[in-house]
Amino acid sequence: MSVSPGRTLRVLRDRKPLVHQITNYVVMNETANATLALGALPVMAHALEEVEEMVGLAGALVLNIGTLSPRWVDAMIAAGKAANAGGIPVVLDPVGAGATRYRTETTRRILSEVGVTVLRGNQGEVATLVGADAEVRGVESIGAAGDGADLARTAARSLALIASVTGVVDHVSDGTRVLAVANGHELLATVTGTGCMSSAVTGCFLAAKHDESLEAAAEALAAFGVAAEDAARDAKGPGTFHANLYDALAALDPETLDGRARIS
Amino acid sequence: MSVSPGRTLRVLRDRKPLVHQITNYVVMNETANATLALGALPVMAHALEEVEEMVGLAGALVLNIGTLSPRWVDAMIAAGKAANAGGIPVVLDPVGAGATRYRTETTRRILSEVGVTVLRGNQGEVATLVGADAEVRGVESIGAAGDGADLARTAARSLALIASVTGVVDHVSDGTRVLAVANGHELLATVTGTGCMSSAVTGCFLAAKHDESLEAAAEALAAFGVAAEDAARDAKGPGTFHANLYDALAALDPETLDGRARIS
Amino acid sequence: MSVSPGRTLRVLRDRKPLVHQITNYVVMNETANATLALGALPVMAHALEEVEEMVGLAGALVLNIGTLSPRWVDAMIAAGKAANAGGIPVVLDPVGAGATRYRTETTRRILSEVGVTVLRGNQGEVATLVGADAEVRGVESIGAAGDGADLARTAARSLALIASVTGVVDHVSDGTRVLAVANGHELLATVTGTGCMSSAVTGCFLAAKHDESLEAAAEALAAFGVAAEDAARDAKGPGTFHANLYDALAALDPETLDGRARIS
Repeated sequence: MSVSPGRTLRVLRDRKPLVHQITNYVVMNETANATLALGALPVMAHALEEVEEMVGLAGALVLNIGTLSPRWVDAMIAAGKAANAGGIPVVLDPVGAGATRYRTETTRRILSEVGVTVLRGNQGEVATLVGADAEVRGVESIGAAGDGADLARTAARSLALIASVTGVVDHVSDGTRVLAVANGHELLATVTGTGCMSSAVTGCFLAAKHDESLEAAAEALAAFGVAAEDAARDAKGPGTFHANLYDALAALDPETLDGRARIS
Repeated sequence: MSVSPGRTLRVLRDRKPLVHQITNYVVMNETANATLALGALPVMAHALEEVEEMVGLAGALVLNIGTLSPRWVDAMIAAGKAANAGGIPVVLDPVGAGATRYRTETTRRILSEVGVTVLRGNQGEVATLVGADAEVRGVESIGAAGDGADLARTAARSLALIASVTGVVDHVSDGTRVLAVANGHELLATVTGTGCMSSAVTGCFLAAKHDESLEAAAEALAAFGVAAEDAARDAKGPGTFHANLYDALAALDPETLDGRARIS
Repeated sequence: MSVSPGRTLRVLRDRKPLVHQITNYVVMNETANATLALGALPVMAHALEEVEEMVGLAGALVLNIGTLSPRWVDAMIAAGKAANAGGIPVVLDPVGAGATRYRTETTRRILSEVGVTVLRGNQGEVATLVGADAEVRGVESIGAAGDGADLARTAARSLALIASVTGVVDHVSDGTRVLAVANGHELLATVTGTGCMSSAVTGCFLAAKHDESLEAAAEALAAFGVAAEDAARDAKGPGTFHANLYDALAALDPETLDGRARIS
């Protein structure tokens, strides 16, 4: 194991991997801009006619069910299978799982048909998928669903993937080890799509550090959290914080990032 | 009657109601962020597979035809009927009614199949729906369509709902009474989707003050207008105004809001 | 020939033409806001049920295949034919042509069925369409594909349209003449959709200067580039640059624009 978000960020900026995202209408611009600001190249493509070809060009695939509908789900599964065939890591963001049966069942269907590398969700979403108690209001997780570290470990074991559960402290687990990430800022909760952005950033880091997915997923959350801390400094509220967040992602310094990352 | 945007805002922030929005692609991020900045929880869901279940969790439903297509219209009507069955208030924003037959006819169809609590539109859109003269260019209302107060009262009577007609001065009517709201700023017209945001904010206020819809609709426009006034203070143009607007919505002070609201 | 971006901008702001855009989900808000900030009126409409009627109201039509799917392509072609029948200029932005067969073939299909006035793309996209070598990674053009002026002239001749090829220096050609535009800023490459915005701005300028499309297309890129130069002045990164860009478009001064435009 070697955790170094700074080193992974440097690799990412050198390689500029393409990160294929099939995501929701609300945050497409935001996740594309976060990807670009970080130093990778985003591409959004959802047509069955092209997703398999597009993912073949990519270093990672990010699936996000935030505004799902049947055709989009079909495209996610086709892209996910193509990614699996090509050895390309897949991130799944189960936005709103637990809120409606359609979201919960779609998440289970994707998990059963696609080999997902990292599941990145909030406590309510992930708890839903492992049958734990959780309160989800729409796409927001309300209140803690017990201990985040336990939840991440349980989800990783039962779903056989890396579980990345974000909250005040984030927990990333492969079922055995658990990495806790304590970076971030409360203003993240005031801007829609910051969870989705963290999933996109996870895809970027996986593309740069393919062989150590647990570490890459934790590094991504640390890097995103450090950027949020920087963005909050001069922010006057959610709007200026949001604009600053892209500035901060672009300004992340690989040299100092390891020292600022709070991964344990 | 009791008009107090400050009190309603306080209730809203305490309860954090879910506001289900089936809206257009252009403004989804913007209306979600306005909802979140104000203190409510947005959720965007448009699949027929889940809209009825989702709206059952919500405190209000906002329908917006800005980028309509047949499947989306079907989902709006299904969600609207479920909202009606559950006693959940419905806001309709008839974006571009009058510009094309499809938009005008879709608006009429929604109004005939769904019980709409508040119709929130510009003068051109609302005038189209009551057969008055209006000039609509695309989704913008060009020039005044006569007296706003009369238009609001006429629309409220003939359509049997609360008509919320926005312009330099906004007019909200239940067919008998008319409340005029004089808050706002000319920079609102330079950012796309600010009308859509005012509809989303109307949904938030209805969710917090269900029993007095006329007052809630006027309070929403006053609160949004006061935030716009605050956002304009340091703005250098449409872009910085847009970012500031979310800051200002989040910073709205319930204690001083009633004194700043210009509702008569 | 008469090149004067300042004069065209003045006409645009006086007439406030409607610019109908059938574009991708990622940038809809951005291109709408760029259009509005510049002084024209955007409308987004993609349903087959209304695109022909909507384009009849417009001064220009902008087609963008950034997140294409079959229904949207059908709507683009229907709108394009209606624009042709009405003498309304058409801009095509072939986002990602060369990345997947579906994008390349869709671009060729649109070019064969619709009379396109201006093709606005990056070097990789345009080179793909004329069979030249190019490296495209997703929707980004990587590295130079030879000489931009030659590429623009070749594309204009072989496709029988105005080719507007953007890069560090932009080149716009009708197959005979080539105008080079040297305005812009490197921060444009750090925000997603700035290419799409330049296509929307091209549509705005064509709507204001219908009879000299070559000049209008070059003027649009100069105006957009000057706005980018202004936006970069106080920017701290991609996020604040992005917000500033709308401020700068709105603040463009027709009196000084001709002096700042670097068109040769």
